[in-house]
Order: sequence, then structure tokens, then C-alpha cells
Amino acid sequence: MLTEAETRDNPGIMASHLNAEFRSTPIVWETIVQAHERIRPRIHRTPVLTSATLNALAGAELFFKCENLQKTGSFKIRGATNAIFSLSNEEAERGVVTHSSGNHAAAVACAAGWRGLAAWIVMPKNAPAVKCHAVEAYGGKITFCEPTVTSRAEVAERIEQQTGAVMVHPYDDDRIIAGQATAAKELLEEVPELDAVLAPVSGGGLLSGTCLGAKGQSGTVKVFGCEPERADDAYRSLTSGVLQKQESSDTVADGLRASLAPRTFAILQKLVDGVLLVSEQEIVDAMKRVWERMKIVVEPSSAVAVAPLLRPGGVPALGLTSKRGQQKPRIGIILSGGNVELKN
Amino acid sequence: MLTEAETRDNPGIMASHLNAEFRSTPIVWETIVQAHERIRPRIHRTPVLTSATLNALAGAELFFKCENLQKTGSFKIRGATNAIFSLSNEEAERGVVTHSSGNHAAAVACAAGWRGLAAWIVMPKNAPAVKCHAVEAYGGKITFCEPTVTSRAEVAERIEQQTGAVMVHPYDDDRIIAGQATAAKELLEEVPELDAVLAPVSGGGLLSGTCLGAKGQSGTVKVFGCEPERADDAYRSLTSGVLQKQESSDTVADGLRASLAPRTFAILQKLVDGVLLVSEQEIVDAMKRVWERMKIVVEPSSAVAVAPLLRPGGVPALGLTSKRGQQKPRIGIILSGGNVELKN
Repeated sequence: MLTEAETRDNPGIMASHLNAEFRSTPIVWETIVQAHERIRPRIHRTPVLTSATLNALAGAELFFKCENLQKTGSFKIRGATNAIFSLSNEEAERGVVTHSSGNHAAAVACAAGWRGLAAWIVMPKNAPAVKCHAVEAYGGKITFCEPTVTSRAEVAERIEQQTGAVMVHPYDDDRIIAGQATAAKELLEEVPELDAVLAPVSGGGLLSGTCLGAKGQSGTVKVFGCEPERADDAYRSLTSGVLQKQESSDTVADGLRASLAPRTFAILQKLVDGVLLVSEQEIVDAMKRVWERMKIVVEPSSAVAVAPLLRPGGVPALGLTSKRGQQKPRIGIILSGGNVELKN
Repeated sequence: MLTEAETRDNPGIMASHLNAEFRSTPIVWETIVQAHERIRPRIHRTPVLTSATLNALAGAELFFKCENLQKTGSFKIRGATNAIFSLSNEEAERGVVTHSSGNHAAAVACAAGWRGLAAWIVMPKNAPAVKCHAVEAYGGKITFCEPTVTSRAEVAERIEQQTGAVMVHPYDDDRIIAGQATAAKELLEEVPELDAVLAPVSGGGLLSGTCLGAKGQSGTVKVFGCEPERADDAYRSLTSGVLQKQESSDTVADGLRASLAPRTFAILQKLVDGVLLVSEQEIVDAMKRVWERMKIVVEPSSAVAVAPLLRPGGVPALGLTSKRGQQKPRIGIILSGGNVELKN
């Protein structure tokens, strides 16, 4: 394992263990290192927590990368900050526009505020009040649209044309993917000998970034996406080899209702080791376990990446084994966010 | 500020800035350093978290020492581990006994399990089921008593006599106080330039330990206890100079219903800079803020030490200023625990 300073000083030395698939993706390791340098002063280096109780349930050593404790309450600030601070001054003057009903909206508003830019945020008119308040608190200008994928894109495009603002897509953007990759980069820097990393998958920005951030540092780590059965488009896309859209999306994991984009699909086809599906009940049970045993607030989308580990049989039943002889497998989990509305 | 290695190698060098009050307490700095060495391999070094939103509300830089993320869900495992691993083999063979309705019970059961000792735990018969289950899961043997201070002590004393078990008092014990001091020790090691540290106060084990752990490393840091108005015995004891008992105890902060002991009272009289009282509504509001903004689960007793900072006027209104010129005051908070029963 290389030290952080070594990889920073000489990103090229990482290349030796990178396989042909990694090198064929459009995002090279150096891009991720640069993204990390760019965002590092502005974001939290989130803690990696462990739990003896959850280890016992999973039959493994679990390492939770707590992006729920990240600024704005999710990993989304990583990609948004990288994208916004990558803009040229000419681009920046035009402001930014995006569409999102959730964490990416708050992240873009927050990062734009840090750089002093205007941020137009298109949100579905049924978005939760708490998420709208967060965007407004960060200084974002909300335009409401119909709660359909088509309406979102249309309204955002109209604002783009009217204002000249730069589109910051939630996941179909190399700058976003490189930013999200820094969570797994930090996790592997702290816990180098991971056998696998699990992350939730929706549009695929986090999961493709996790593949790049993890496999850029370890030649043996596996990466799995985790997805609700009720929003299983990534699973269907990757097993069929053809990009699938999500028709219905009534899962409790409200952050996982988007579908892969061509860019994230292409990276995942090369690098991801599989997609694990979980039921609604498993999501709710896993979320409760994390709150109770780890004393941290995670949103349902985060619990999706915990649920497969807590099934009867735990990690061994998933077929994941340790590469270090008789030791228990070491599994990293990206806890993606903690933005839930708390009842009084 | 000394490095951890320096203090470990030569505890005596801390003495130069320690004032006469510190040196007159029964627990010397070396005792705390030894306690830390003893428990360090068995407990979490909990993260210190920050929140830009809470900083803005408080008008200060806040550093939260997250003992809610500690093993067994509270700081109590520090003192319990130190006490139990301080026992001679002869003492250990007799097992341990304690009385507690909450976090100390689980901590003693857990630490006794680590050393392979029997642990008799006296709990009031109205203790929450979730706390009883935790004690049993750690292998503790529960004896129920009437929900009065007198009954608790009587039943524990009877078990002590019948079994020969060693009493591990929740706070009236130097080994417990030295263990609890390690939370503030770690906090000051990580954030040396603190102007003040706030901790909740009940029996005074955590608060007296916090005074010792903080003032052992900084000649200028102030330490304040925080207490519910409805359980204000520490405030009354320290202002009157005479140890007061708590008559009623109907505060939502269920961990703060005990009264100071002679041992903790004596340390606090010498070292604490004041006690801040908070209302029930302030406790509930502060707890909700921490859950919402920091994405961590804290119990009401922890929120007691946050509430004074979030009042109108924030930290400046408390009269706390920075010793570093025009900068904002830097305040540490010991978040003592996260054991709450979650509703479905």
C-alpha cells in the first residue's frame, strides 16, 4: 500500500497493478488524485467506524465510511465541489444549474455558495419540504417542475439556455464521478487490506467512483453495488448488457430512484463485480440496526449497502472470503448519507 | 502542547503548568496516563466531529467528542474497563458487582466479559427493557431491586457480602474517574487550543474526569458542567459549598438523576469553573438539532451539554471568549452517550 503522499507526488506509480479494464476507463487515477486535492480543504475527511455487534452478525470485519457525517449530510458534496471548483472563471461567472430532488441539490447549492456562484436548482414540486429548505439555506434558487424525469431535464435545459449557466449533472459527468471516487480513496488509504467494498447504486456516480477509487489502490479488492429489488435497473442493465430504465420507483430508498447513464454504465460494465438486491424490509431492518448499534443516522439509501451483510449466513453466505488466509473477510461499506426527516 | 508520546513517556513533564488545585486532587496525571494505556487497546478512540451549522448557531468553533460512538454506546466503558483491568487476579476471581439503571450497568457487564469475570448487576425493576437486554447480552447477571437509591445500595451490598464480589461504584471511585478522564485527554490531544470543555454532570464521574483530563493538558482551559434544571443538585452543591442530594428526578435526561458523591464533589470544588442549567425544552431541542445536523444519535443526557451553546447569543452570551485574539472561541463538548430506545 502506498502512502497518501506517495500517490499524491507520483500518481503514475499506481499504474503497475491497474488492469486493462481500469486503464480503459475515461477517468485516470491522476484525475481522482487531483479531484481529492481540489476538494480536500473544503470537505470533511469522514471517519471510518466499526461495530463489534455488526461484525458478529456479518461474520466479517466491517469498515463503515461515514459519508452521512459529510458536509450537507451526504457524499454528493464531493462531486459537486469538484465540478464547481473545476470550472474556469469564465464558466463560473455564468453560474450553475442542476436537477435533483435530494442530496445533489443541496450539495450543488452549498458548493456554489462556497465559490460565490449563482445556483439554479430544478426540483420536483413534490420534493420534501426539508430538502427544499436545505437548498434555500445554502442560497440555491429553486425552480419547481413536474415530478417526472422528462420535466426535470426540460426545465433544467430551459434555465441553461436562458441564463447560460453550466449544467452540473448529478452523475453523468466525469468531474462528478471523480469527486465521488474520493470517498473510496480515503477508505482504502485508511484500511488498505479490504476484500470488498459495497456501495448503493442509483445513477451510478457513487458506484462507478467507488470502483475507480478502490481498484485504483488495490489490485484485488472487489466492488459490489447494492440496489433495492424495487429499483433494480442497474442489476438488469449489467446482467443483460443493455442499459435499462427504471419504470416504477416506489422504494423507501428515495435516493436510489434514478437509472444509470451511458457514462456510469460503461465504467460499471468494466469494473463492478456484481449487484446485490435487497428487499424493502431488509432496508428498514438494516437502517434500524445501524441507528441502534452504531448510534449514527443513516438514510434508507445507505442501509441498502448494509442489508446484504446482515442476512442469515452473513458475509460468508455472499461468497466473500478473506485473501489473508484464515482471517475473517474485511468489508468496506460506503454509508452514503444521513438526510432523513426526523419526527418530533 | 505535548505530543501523546511525550506525555506517555514522561508524565512528569505535564506538571509544570498544573496549578495547586490540580496537584491537590487525589488523582495525579500519571494515574490518568496509566488508565489510558490500560484501556486503549479495548475501547474506540472516538472521533471528534464538527458542524458548520452548529458553529454558526453558537458563534464559536465546536468540537464534539463522540462518546455516543464508543463501545457500549457511552463513555462509561472507559471507567469500567479501567476499574476491572486494575483488579489483582485475586480480586478478579471474586467477580464484580455494581448498581445502575443504565450505561454503567452495560459497561461493567461488557468489561467484565472481556476479562472473563462474573458481573452481578443490580438494576431497578422499572429499568427499560432495552437496557436490561444489553446487560444480559454482555453476560451480566441481573438482580432487580426497588427503584430507590436505598434499595439499590442495599441489594448491591448484600450481593457483595454473599459472593465476595468487588464493588465497582458508578462514580465514587478513583479508577472510574481516571478512566472517564481519558475522553477529555483524547479530545485535548486532538484539539489542543480549546477555550472551554462542557460535559454533563450527574454523579460527577465524567465531569471530574473531564476537569482532570482537560486541565492536565492545558493551563488555561475552562471546564463547565451542564445539568438539567430539574436535577440541579450539582449546581446547588457547588454554589452552597455543601453536598446536596437530588430529591426528585423527572428530567428527560435519564442518565443525570444521580447526585454527586463526596469524592467527585471534592474534585469539582477545586477544578470546575461552573455549572450551566438547562430546561427540558432546551434539552429536547438540542437533541433534535444534533440528530438532524450532525447525523448522530445522542441521548438526552448528551444534549444537556449542547443546549447552553445553542441559546440566543450562543457562546459569547455565556461570557466565553477566545484566548487567541480576535478568533472565535473554541469549545469542546463531551457527547456522553447514544443509548435511546428507537421507535419503529
